[in-house]
Amino acid sequence: MQIEGAWAPENIGLVERPEPEPGPGEVVIGMRAVSINPRDLIMSRGGYGRRGGSLPLVPLSDGAGEVVAVGEGVRRVAIGDLVCPTYSRTWLAGPLGPDSMRGAHGGPLDGTMQERMLIPEDAVVKAPRHMTAAEAATLPCAAVTAWNALVEQGGIRAGDVVLLQGTGGVSLFALQVAKLHGALVILTSSSDAKLARAQAMGADHLINYRSTPDWHRRAREITAGRGVDHVVEVGGADTLERSIRAVRPGGTISMIGVLGGSTPELGLGRVVTRNIRLQGVTVGSRATFEAMVRAMELHALRPPIHDQRFAFEEVGAALQALPEGRHFGKVVSEF
Amino acid sequence: MQIEGAWAPENIGLVERPEPEPGPGEVVIGMRAVSINPRDLIMSRGGYGRRGGSLPLVPLSDGAGEVVAVGEGVRRVAIGDLVCPTYSRTWLAGPLGPDSMRGAHGGPLDGTMQERMLIPEDAVVKAPRHMTAAEAATLPCAAVTAWNALVEQGGIRAGDVVLLQGTGGVSLFALQVAKLHGALVILTSSSDAKLARAQAMGADHLINYRSTPDWHRRAREITAGRGVDHVVEVGGADTLERSIRAVRPGGTISMIGVLGGSTPELGLGRVVTRNIRLQGVTVGSRATFEAMVRAMELHALRPPIHDQRFAFEEVGAALQALPEGRHFGKVVSEF
Amino acid sequence: MQIEGAWAPENIGLVERPEPEPGPGEVVIGMRAVSINPRDLIMSRGGYGRRGGSLPLVPLSDGAGEVVAVGEGVRRVAIGDLVCPTYSRTWLAGPLGPDSMRGAHGGPLDGTMQERMLIPEDAVVKAPRHMTAAEAATLPCAAVTAWNALVEQGGIRAGDVVLLQGTGGVSLFALQVAKLHGALVILTSSSDAKLARAQAMGADHLINYRSTPDWHRRAREITAGRGVDHVVEVGGADTLERSIRAVRPGGTISMIGVLGGSTPELGLGRVVTRNIRLQGVTVGSRATFEAMVRAMELHALRPPIHDQRFAFEEVGAALQALPEGRHFGKVVSEF
Amino acid sequence: MQIEGAWAPENIGLVERPEPEPGPGEVVIGMRAVSINPRDLIMSRGGYGRRGGSLPLVPLSDGAGEVVAVGEGVRRVAIGDLVCPTYSRTWLAGPLGPDSMRGAHGGPLDGTMQERMLIPEDAVVKAPRHMTAAEAATLPCAAVTAWNALVEQGGIRAGDVVLLQGTGGVSLFALQVAKLHGALVILTSSSDAKLARAQAMGADHLINYRSTPDWHRRAREITAGRGVDHVVEVGGADTLERSIRAVRPGGTISMIGVLGGSTPELGLGRVVTRNIRLQGVTVGSRATFEAMVRAMELHALRPPIHDQRFAFEEVGAALQALPEGRHFGKVVSEF
Repeated sequence: MQIEGAWAPENIGLVERPEPEPGPGEVVIGMRAVSINPRDLIMSRGGYGRRGGSLPLVPLSDGAGEVVAVGEGVRRVAIGDLVCPTYSRTWLAGPLGPDSMRGAHGGPLDGTMQERMLIPEDAVVKAPRHMTAAEAATLPCAAVTAWNALVEQGGIRAGDVVLLQGTGGVSLFALQVAKLHGALVILTSSSDAKLARAQAMGADHLINYRSTPDWHRRAREITAGRGVDHVVEVGGADTLERSIRAVRPGGTISMIGVLGGSTPELGLGRVVTRNIRLQGVTVGSRATFEAMVRAMELHALRPPIHDQRFAFEEVGAALQALPEGRHFGKVVSEF
Repeated sequence: MQIEGAWAPENIGLVERPEPEPGPGEVVIGMRAVSINPRDLIMSRGGYGRRGGSLPLVPLSDGAGEVVAVGEGVRRVAIGDLVCPTYSRTWLAGPLGPDSMRGAHGGPLDGTMQERMLIPEDAVVKAPRHMTAAEAATLPCAAVTAWNALVEQGGIRAGDVVLLQGTGGVSLFALQVAKLHGALVILTSSSDAKLARAQAMGADHLINYRSTPDWHRRAREITAGRGVDHVVEVGGADTLERSIRAVRPGGTISMIGVLGGSTPELGLGRVVTRNIRLQGVTVGSRATFEAMVRAMELHALRPPIHDQRFAFEEVGAALQALPEGRHFGKVVSEF
Repeated sequence: MQIEGAWAPENIGLVERPEPEPGPGEVVIGMRAVSINPRDLIMSRGGYGRRGGSLPLVPLSDGAGEVVAVGEGVRRVAIGDLVCPTYSRTWLAGPLGPDSMRGAHGGPLDGTMQERMLIPEDAVVKAPRHMTAAEAATLPCAAVTAWNALVEQGGIRAGDVVLLQGTGGVSLFALQVAKLHGALVILTSSSDAKLARAQAMGADHLINYRSTPDWHRRAREITAGRGVDHVVEVGGADTLERSIRAVRPGGTISMIGVLGGSTPELGLGRVVTRNIRLQGVTVGSRATFEAMVRAMELHALRPPIHDQRFAFEEVGAALQALPEGRHFGKVVSEF
Repeated sequence: MQIEGAWAPENIGLVERPEPEPGPGEVVIGMRAVSINPRDLIMSRGGYGRRGGSLPLVPLSDGAGEVVAVGEGVRRVAIGDLVCPTYSRTWLAGPLGPDSMRGAHGGPLDGTMQERMLIPEDAVVKAPRHMTAAEAATLPCAAVTAWNALVEQGGIRAGDVVLLQGTGGVSLFALQVAKLHGALVILTSSSDAKLARAQAMGADHLINYRSTPDWHRRAREITAGRGVDHVVEVGGADTLERSIRAVRPGGTISMIGVLGGSTPELGLGRVVTRNIRLQGVTVGSRATFEAMVRAMELHALRPPIHDQRFAFEEVGAALQALPEGRHFGKVVSEF
C-alpha cells in the first residue's frame, strides 16, 4: 500500500512493487501484521511537511513479520525470526540526536504497510519470543514511547505513583510498564466501561473525568496531598494545566500528545517553584526497544489490542476512525 | 528590619530585638551584608500567601556575616568564619522535596536583614575564602540557582552552548558558571551597554533583542542550525516560545523566572517532537551551594555586583526599584 | 544495654540510665524491637577504631519503637507513631558525604539497644503502616542497603537479571526489591534448604555453590551468555573474582561485604575491557529509606525474619553466633 | 602495512592492496597520519586472542585522513573533509554493549595503518577544524577514553580535584579535559622534567612518585584531607591501592590501564565503607567522540604530541619502544 498523488488517507492504495533483494547487511521481512498510531494519520495528511518525506510513500511505522531473506554478513537475525522494524533506523542508542528521526519508517522512509520490507539488519529487533505477529506489531511506537517515558526518562521505581490519561496505546502500555516496576497507577477516562477494563489490567485507581472534571484534585487526594511522581501526558494542552497541578514537587510530566491546541493559561509559575520537569518524549532508540523486549519476555506480557481489527485494504478508513477514540488499546491488522 | 502590620515593601521598618543566644547546634551570625532578589519584592507584597509565613517578618534571603557566637556541639563553623545562611534550612542535599521550602529565609522564616541572625549550624555555608562579605552576600539565591540549573540539572560540559537572557543576577552567575565549565555563551539584552559589560565578563555572542527581536533565529545561526544546548529562561512566558525554538533536540530549558504572564500560543508540539526538557529550578540545596563554593574558590571568582549599593534603611525602596532593571548584577547593601 | 570497660561482645551489659527528656526538635522512642547486623559484631569488638566512638556505647543500629514523647516544634512524627531511627542522623539525602557517617547509631553514637532512645526528629522515619515493630526493626541497615544498591545506584529496571549471594539480610531484601521491580533473580547458597526458602520468596534460579562451585558459569548460561546486569556482592574477596566473570559488559557489582580477605588474583583487566562498575555501598540516606518505605507499604511487603529470636539480654551471644550463618533473614529481638 | 604469518610486531610489513571502491554508505579515507596506543602492542602480539581477529591484519586504531571517495547516499561527510575513524564502528552512541567492540579497528577489523581505508560513513567523525592530520590522528582512543572517563562517566564539574598518573596519552588528554571543565589537577610522574612539562600544560600540583612514594598522602594533604574527586587510574594493580586511599568518599576511580599485575592486598573494605566507585572505561562511542570534538574546536585545543615521530615503516619498532615510557604525549607518524 502507498500514499499516492496527494497527501490524504483516502489516497492510500495497493500497488505492486518488485520483490526486493537484500544487499550486504540487509534483510527482507515478510510482513505479517501492522498497527496504527495517531502519527500515521497526521503523516497521511502531509502534516509533517518536508520532514514526512515525499510521495509515493508506504505508510505506517508499526509492524512485525518474519525474516525471509538475509544479505551478506547479516548477524543480528536469521531467516525465520519474527522481528519488528525499529521506529527509526537512525536512532540505535543514546538520547535523541539531530539525525535520529531522519530514518523514521512511515515517513520520511517507506513504512511497514508492505508485504516485503527491505531493511538494514541494524533497524530490526527480535520480537518477544512469546508474542504473535499481531502482538509484536503493536510495539515499535506506542510501547517504546511508554517505556522511554517511564523507565529511561522517568527512572520509575517501586512505590511511585503514575497518572495515566485514557486508554490509547501509549497509556495502556504505560500501565503495563508501571505495574512491572511496582508502581501505583491512577488512570483517567470518560468511559466507565474502559475504566473497568483498565482496572482488569491492573490500574489501581480510576477516575472518570466526565463525572470528576477536577481529576487533579482527586489524584492529590489519592496521594494524601503529596502529588503523583509521573504523569504521562497524552491529552493535549487542555489537560496539561491539570497535570501540572497533579504532580509532586520534583516530579516529571512526560509530554507525548501535546501536539495541538492553544495553552490559554498554563501554570508555569508552579513548574518553577515546584521544580517540575516537563519532558518531551518521542518513541525511543533501538537499545530502548531491546531492553523493553527483555522485560516483556520475562513477564510474558500480552500487549493491549483492540478487539476489532481492520483488513489490509481498510487502512485509510482505520486511520480516519482513530480520533473517534472507540478503541481500547492498539488497532491492528494481520495479513 | 521587619515587615510589620501589612504586607508591603513600604512597611519594612527598623525594630530592636533582644540579642540572641545560641542553643545547642546553633550559631549567631553578625550580618555584614545582604543582597536582594525578585522573590523578596513578591514576598514583601504578600505574594506567596501562606507559604510566605506571617508578620512581622525579617525580609531578604541573601546575606553574609561573621559567626559571633556558637552553641554547644557546633562543628561545622567557628567564631570568626565568614558564612552565608543557606536559602532554606530544610534543604540540605538531594533534589527538592515536599519540605524543602518550609525552612526558607526571608519567608516563611525570618531572613537576613538583621544585625544578629540566630540559625542552626546546619543552615550555614562557609563563604569562599577570597570573597568580601558583600560578595558572599550575593550567593545564596541567584548563584546557587544558576549552578543548580546548569551543573546539577543541566550536566553542563565543555563545548556546550548556553543561551542567557539579560544581565540580572541569575544570568550573570550563569555566565560565570558556564565559562568555568568551558561552554560557549550567547547572551541577550536590550542594552548595548550591558551587552558590552557581559562581553567583558566572557560572553561569546551578544544579541540585542530590541534590534534583533527574532533572537532565537540568531542563536540557531550561531550554532550552525543545531540549536543551543541549554537556555536559562528568566524572561517570562513571552520569551519561552522563542527559547523553545532556540534549543536543540534533546536540549534543556531551565525555567526560573516564568512567574507570571499568559502563554498565548506555546509551541509545545515542538517540545514533544524534539524531546526538549523544561526543568523548573528554584535555588538549590546546601550541598549544591558547597560544591559551588569549591569552584568559586578555586577560580577566585568575583560575583557580579551592581555598582550602586543601597543603605540598610533603604531596603524597601531598593526592592521597589528592582523591576526597573537598571542594575547590572546583584544589588547589595553592606553595613 | 551498653558495651563497657573494653570492646567485646561479652562486655555488653544492662545499665540504668535516667529517663530522657526531649529538647526542641527531639523525640523519645520507646524501643520495642531491634535486629542485628555484621557491623554490630565488628563494632562491638572495636573493629572500626576511632570511627566507632568511645565506651560506654549502646550497641546496635537497627530498631523500631513507638514515639512516647516529643519536644517543642516537632512536626515529622507524633506520639504513638511506630518509627525507626535512621542508620545515621547526619545523612538525610543525596550521596554519601564526608560527614554522613559521623551520626551513625550503634557507633560512634549510642544505638538502638535501649528502652528509651532520645533522638532528633530528623533522624527517624515512620515505619511502613502494615509492619509490626519486629518487622520494622529489620529495615534501617540491611533493607536500605539493598534498596540503595539496586535502585539508587543500580537503576534497576524490569527485565534485569540480578545475582544474589546467600540468604543473609541484605541478600533477601535485595531479592524482594529486585522482584518488586520486575527483575529476574539468581541466588546462590551452600544449603539446598535455604535455596528452597529463597525460591518460595520468589528467586527464579537457584545455584548451590557447593555442588556448582563455578556458579559464575551457570549464571552466564542462565543469561544465554550475556551476563547478569547486577551482582550484590556480599561474599568477600573470594567471590568477587567470580562476580566479575558473571556480570555483563557495562554491568554493576554492588560491593557490600568485601570487608576482609586478600585478593590474590582479581581479574581487573576484565573490569576495564568490559566497562564494569564496582560500586561500594554502605546503607543509605533518610530519603532513600523513605522511598523504600513507600514501596513496601504499597506492596505490603513482609521482611524476611529468622524464626529464632533472641532475648534482650542475649544480644552479645546473638552477635557472636552471627558468623555461623545458621539464620535465614534478619535476626531480631522483641521486647 | 599488515601483520602477517604470526602475531608479532616484528611481522608488520608493507603489502600492496587493490584501491578500494566505496559501496553505498561507504567512504574511502586517504590516511595521512596515525598514532599508537598500548593496545596496539598487545594486539600485535596476539594478546587479545580471538577477540583480536585473524591474520593478516592491518594494525592500529588511531588515525586521520582526508575523504577521497564517497559511495552512494553518503551524507555525514564530503570529499576533502579531514576525518578520523571511530575506534569501533559498532559503538555509535549510548553505553558499551555486547557488540560494541566487534567493530574495533586495528583488531578484529583492519586498522588505520593503510594508505586507503574503506569504511562506512557511520564510522567516521569530522576532525576538529583547527587540527592538522597528525593532531587529529591522536584522538580516537586516548582522547575519547579521557573524555569518557571524566565527562560521561565521571560527570566532572568545576572545582573538582582530579588525580592523574604519568604523562602518557590518556593522562595528558585527561589533564586538558579536566582543565576545560574548571577542575584542579594533581599529576604524578617519576620525572621532574615531565612534571615541568605537565605544569606548563596546566597541571596545578605535581608529585614525583619516586621522591614521594606515598603520593596518596600528598594528594589528601592538597585536598585538606577531603580526598580527590576522580582518579584516572592507568598505572596497573600496584597503584590502585594508593588510588583507593587518595579518593574521597563517594569519589570515582576510572580504571583504564589495570590490564596486568596481581593485586596482593587491595583495600576493598575502604571501597565499601567510603562508597567509592571503580569504573572500567574503554574508549567510548561515536557520540562521545563528537561531543569532545565540539569542545576541542571551541577551545582550539592542541593535542599533546611526542616530539619524536616515527616513519611509516618503523611502526613495529615504535610499538616495541612504547613501554619504555620515554614519550610525553602521543606518538605519531605522518605520511
